[in-house]
Amino acid sequence: MTGTVRIPHGTLQAFAAELFGRAGLRPHDAAVIGHDLVAAELRGLASHGVSRIPMYLERLRRGVVNPRPAISVTKMTPAVSLVDGDDGMGFLVAHEAMKEAIALAGAIGIGLVGVRRSTHFGMSALYVQQAIDAGYLSLVFTNSSPAIPVWGGRTAFLGAAPMAAGVPGGRAPGFLLDMAMTGIARGKIRLAARHGAPIEPGLALDKSGAPTTDAAAAFEGVCLPFGGHKGAALAMLMDLLCGVFTGASFGGAVGSLYFDHGAPQNLGHLMIVARRDLFVPADEFERRMDTFVERAKACPRAQPFDEIQMPGEPEDRKATALRAEGVPVSAEVLSDLDGEADRLGVARLHRG
Amino acid sequence: MTGTVRIPHGTLQAFAAELFGRAGLRPHDAAVIGHDLVAAELRGLASHGVSRIPMYLERLRRGVVNPRPAISVTKMTPAVSLVDGDDGMGFLVAHEAMKEAIALAGAIGIGLVGVRRSTHFGMSALYVQQAIDAGYLSLVFTNSSPAIPVWGGRTAFLGAAPMAAGVPGGRAPGFLLDMAMTGIARGKIRLAARHGAPIEPGLALDKSGAPTTDAAAAFEGVCLPFGGHKGAALAMLMDLLCGVFTGASFGGAVGSLYFDHGAPQNLGHLMIVARRDLFVPADEFERRMDTFVERAKACPRAQPFDEIQMPGEPEDRKATALRAEGVPVSAEVLSDLDGEADRLGVARLHRG
Repeated sequence: MTGTVRIPHGTLQAFAAELFGRAGLRPHDAAVIGHDLVAAELRGLASHGVSRIPMYLERLRRGVVNPRPAISVTKMTPAVSLVDGDDGMGFLVAHEAMKEAIALAGAIGIGLVGVRRSTHFGMSALYVQQAIDAGYLSLVFTNSSPAIPVWGGRTAFLGAAPMAAGVPGGRAPGFLLDMAMTGIARGKIRLAARHGAPIEPGLALDKSGAPTTDAAAAFEGVCLPFGGHKGAALAMLMDLLCGVFTGASFGGAVGSLYFDHGAPQNLGHLMIVARRDLFVPADEFERRMDTFVERAKACPRAQPFDEIQMPGEPEDRKATALRAEGVPVSAEVLSDLDGEADRLGVARLHRG
Repeated sequence: MTGTVRIPHGTLQAFAAELFGRAGLRPHDAAVIGHDLVAAELRGLASHGVSRIPMYLERLRRGVVNPRPAISVTKMTPAVSLVDGDDGMGFLVAHEAMKEAIALAGAIGIGLVGVRRSTHFGMSALYVQQAIDAGYLSLVFTNSSPAIPVWGGRTAFLGAAPMAAGVPGGRAPGFLLDMAMTGIARGKIRLAARHGAPIEPGLALDKSGAPTTDAAAAFEGVCLPFGGHKGAALAMLMDLLCGVFTGASFGGAVGSLYFDHGAPQNLGHLMIVARRDLFVPADEFERRMDTFVERAKACPRAQPFDEIQMPGEPEDRKATALRAEGVPVSAEVLSDLDGEADRLGVARLHRG
């Protein structure tokens, strides 16, 4: 990548935190967001990393995101809570929701937390990892602004709507799935458009409903779901569970991060968390997970694979590598970040 | 379809129930299975209908399925129960598990039920519909005998593993998703093989790991997941949640329905059920669902669609039609059913 520089992840994290601190967030909250954005970079998910900082700051400036939300948690039953995000940064709202879901599951075995009045929460893997770190299984759902059509439609209606899930491991790594409902993440189309790169065929339609490989046209058009009608149905499920069910916006009404700065998003999330020792003791659960991973990795391989990895394992390895090598940041993104640094009176990132 | 006859659904249902009754099931249980198999036929899912009767009866005869199980329900917490299916027919075990999940959710908002020592439970839509009929949201997961490879593998390891979910509607129909993790259901490959019909390319590998369109070779080989690595990861999640987590068989150890008559399957299921009025009142939930459906159906259409339907709606319409027209049953399946009728001393199906 021409013009790409490597930034130590700690440096990038502190820089991002400082920007959000100057934008009015509490220092602890700003540090969480710095950590989370760089965590996405480390997992190789640059589409959900620091390239989004200017957009998040713009939304804070316009007042459609609340820098100091009073996030409220209301217990509806001993196993169910409702979180009202008060239009705060989705990262903060979702971490609070996951914390509550873990607490409920710890007390009664399972926790269901519905979230409304939230905003874009970055990479879903953040909250799945939060549950895994605490030793819990989780399902993490969110809705999002319209990006893909319903099955049979040609305009954006459902969100790209990541669906995520995690199962903690034993000695071997567990399972961490974080997948967009699109064949390609919308953020990756945006990055391709920035770099003038094309996208593969079959992933998107342009505004008129025609197939396109032009990333800019695709970003203004519509992504297609992965797996045809099955992906489309899963994306619909995300909006029903996170929007209709929770009381958040739904059915095409979630505002765009990029095109709609007029009002808060009222995004919804749904988290379901379970204790791993509900049906077998914890040590047996760990042994069973290890056995599963061992068997999976021993399967005869298809071409051209030279190894079988668990979902989440390639990203973990990427993170280990990037912690050593530094996080690659493109010249375009650096230039945007310089602009934000100048505007907020923060020292520009040192190019090393 | 040459040699296909139409049988009134009530006739078919009573016939199936009689067979299972003669095979040693309690009359009520036999009636449930008759109903459920014909419900699959009515939804157009012949692969999960009466064509499976000879296989189910064979497993009962061989003693790997218990005709009169003592299904036990153990409350682990006020929100979580464990169901032990005692190797009974999966239909009976899963209905009992869903009944318990609904009871838990009714009392405390959400119910999680893990199931082990179950067997093949037919079409997942049965249990989602049970929840919808009671006015509840549900996720219904199961594992199954090895049918698809892990991502990067070339042998069957994970189940075709249907994933299903439901959301009750308001005045308009709600949402009912029941999808196999394969690009094509294993049962559909089996039916194609019976009829000597080919399958589409890209759906399966033969035993050697080579792509095939020969249904018989595919049935002995491996189905590919839908949506590439995303479908493969979802299939793995089904086995982790339904096998590793619940204490059932997992990781390739679930016995095949067709090739392994040596031992009970020890299949696992997981059901998560929630009350619809947890975050908004029930009438508001219904209005929101109706609004969603209205908006989805009003989306501009892609070619060649002349209508946008909710997941589950085509199957509902099919059922309405087949209730009027009768259920199509092929000559091959009829002949198999005649054989079972003769063996058990039940009157053959009248051809009308």
